[in-house]
Parts: sequence; C-alpha cells; structure tokens
Amino acid sequence: MNGRAERSIAGLPGLSEHERAWENLALTWITLHRAREIELGKVGLTVPQAAILDLLKTSTEPLTPMKLARRLNRKPHTVSALVSRMETEGLVRTTRDMGRRNWVRVSLTKKGEQAWSRQAEERTARGATACLSKKELDQLNTICRKLRTRGSELIRQMQLNPYGDFFLQ
Amino acid sequence: MNGRAERSIAGLPGLSEHERAWENLALTWITLHRAREIELGKVGLTVPQAAILDLLKTSTEPLTPMKLARRLNRKPHTVSALVSRMETEGLVRTTRDMGRRNWVRVSLTKKGEQAWSRQAEERTARGATACLSKKELDQLNTICRKLRTRGSELIRQMQLNPYGDFFLQ
Repeated sequence: MNGRAERSIAGLPGLSEHERAWENLALTWITLHRAREIELGKVGLTVPQAAILDLLKTSTEPLTPMKLARRLNRKPHTVSALVSRMETEGLVRTTRDMGRRNWVRVSLTKKGEQAWSRQAEERTARGATACLSKKELDQLNTICRKLRTRGSELIRQMQLNPYGDFFLQ
Repeated sequence: MNGRAERSIAGLPGLSEHERAWENLALTWITLHRAREIELGKVGLTVPQAAILDLLKTSTEPLTPMKLARRLNRKPHTVSALVSRMETEGLVRTTRDMGRRNWVRVSLTKKGEQAWSRQAEERTARGATACLSKKELDQLNTICRKLRTRGSELIRQMQLNPYGDFFLQ
C-alpha cells in the first residue's frame, strides 16, 4: 500500500512543490494515525477517545467540553458528542456546577482511568519517530512549529474575512 | 489558540521525546487541516470531497470505491459512504460494469469538474509549506518518507498479529 501511495504522489501531474509536500504530509499523518488506530483498537479505544482520556488525566485544572475542544483544536459540538458517547461507555462522567449555568465538568471514571493506563502501555505507533535520527527529530519539531504558526495565521485571517481573497504573497 | 496549544504540548508531563513529537505532529496536521477546511468551505467542499475530486480528475485509470480507498489509505466503507453522498450532491456519478459483478466505476460529473476547478484556485492553505526554506522543505519530505515507511511497517505487523505484542525495540 505504501509503494502504491508513493507512486501516486510522484505521479500527480501539475502539482507545485508545496502541493506535493502537502500530499506527502497528509499521507504521512493518515498512515501514522491508522497505525495508532489499530494499536488503540487492541485496548478498545479510538484515537479521539484516547486524546480526551489523556487530557483529563494530565490536566491541572477542571475541564469543560469547551476547554477540551480548544486543547484539541476541534469544534465544540464534535467534542460534546464525543464526551457524551464516552459517558455512555462509562469512561467519563459529567457533573453540572450548580453555581454556573451551562458549566459542565468532565472527569475520568475508574473505568476511564483503567483505559488510560492500558493505552499508555501501547506506545509503539505513538513512538514512530524513533525511526528518525536525533537531528531529524529536531528538524521535524522546528518545521512543525513553523507550519503550525502559519496555519494558525491563515485560520485567523480567513475567520476575519471568510469570503474575501487572502492572497498573502 | 496556538499559544495555548504550545503551552499544552510543553506542559505535558511524563511524555518521552517521541510522544512529544507525536503530539507536535498531530497538532500541526490538525491546524493545517482546519485551515484547508475553511479554505475549501469557501467553495462549498469538505477536505475528503476535494481529495476524491482530485483523484478522479488526475487518475489515468478507471477508479472504483475500493481503489479510491487504497489511494487515500481509508477504510472502504468510509469511502463508499462518501462517494454516495457526493453522488447525491451531483459531484460524481457511479456506473455499474455489467461484465463484472459488484464493479462500480466512479467518475466526475460536469458539476464535479467545476467544483474541482474552484478548489484548485484556493491554494493558500494547501501551499502552507511556502513558509519553509528550500532546505526545510527537503528535510520535511525526507522525514515524511521515513515516518510513512515506519507507519506502514507497523500497520502490516499489527494486521498480521492483531492481538499479540509487537515490541520491536
């Protein structure tokens, strides 16, 4: 499957080097994500569920669905639906704070704690960058920081001016 | 949001450098993907729809839902559902090949062609790597190739031995 994917990137006609890099990055993330998905499947979790468990386990402050959505850079309604399914499965509980209207705190149940521990032991896919040299790992972190800054800038500009042109260079 | 995300990566306790790199890469991809999502929203498309249109536009061979799934590294049933929604929207058509049972060819409609052209003009987010130097772009492509090879290896191993341990190092 990888060989076919490589040929399909190399063979894409008319793409600029940046569009090619985009396809390259997209396919890389899809492949790693799929590996992590299979790895987590062994302990009965999905990737977004594991991310929520991780945030709840490591946060030093109480988390609401809105805060979870911000930490995950996801839409609030996506995260609310996810939290609600996880509550049905007994992984998290939500409690209303009577002092603040619409303020819902999400926390781990005992079953959620156990699921977190099991996923934490499955770290081969999540540690995929072990195939890189120390220098490449540093390069990757630097490049990701730049791309993230650029991506956040674009999001801000498009949200300010959602239908206008935004040719920056 | 980006500043908060940066702090949340830096502040994650107990993560190895590889787990930190994973979070870094995940958040980068989510940010770029969100930017592309907003960009495509301007022409009424989603990211997976644009990927399907692109494959149909550039393929030199007839494509079935199964072939599309392989090219996109996605599950066949996910792609079938996507194709079916795109057919309802008039972006693609599916035709059965009477000579081969269950063989469905997916092709672009005129509306799909027009949508492809419109999305091809929206390339600011998709060209986000323009913020990198030539050297960084080369580094990114090299690193992605290594990570993809590693990811594909892990997927193959886990699929061969879905419930066993696979500690490779």
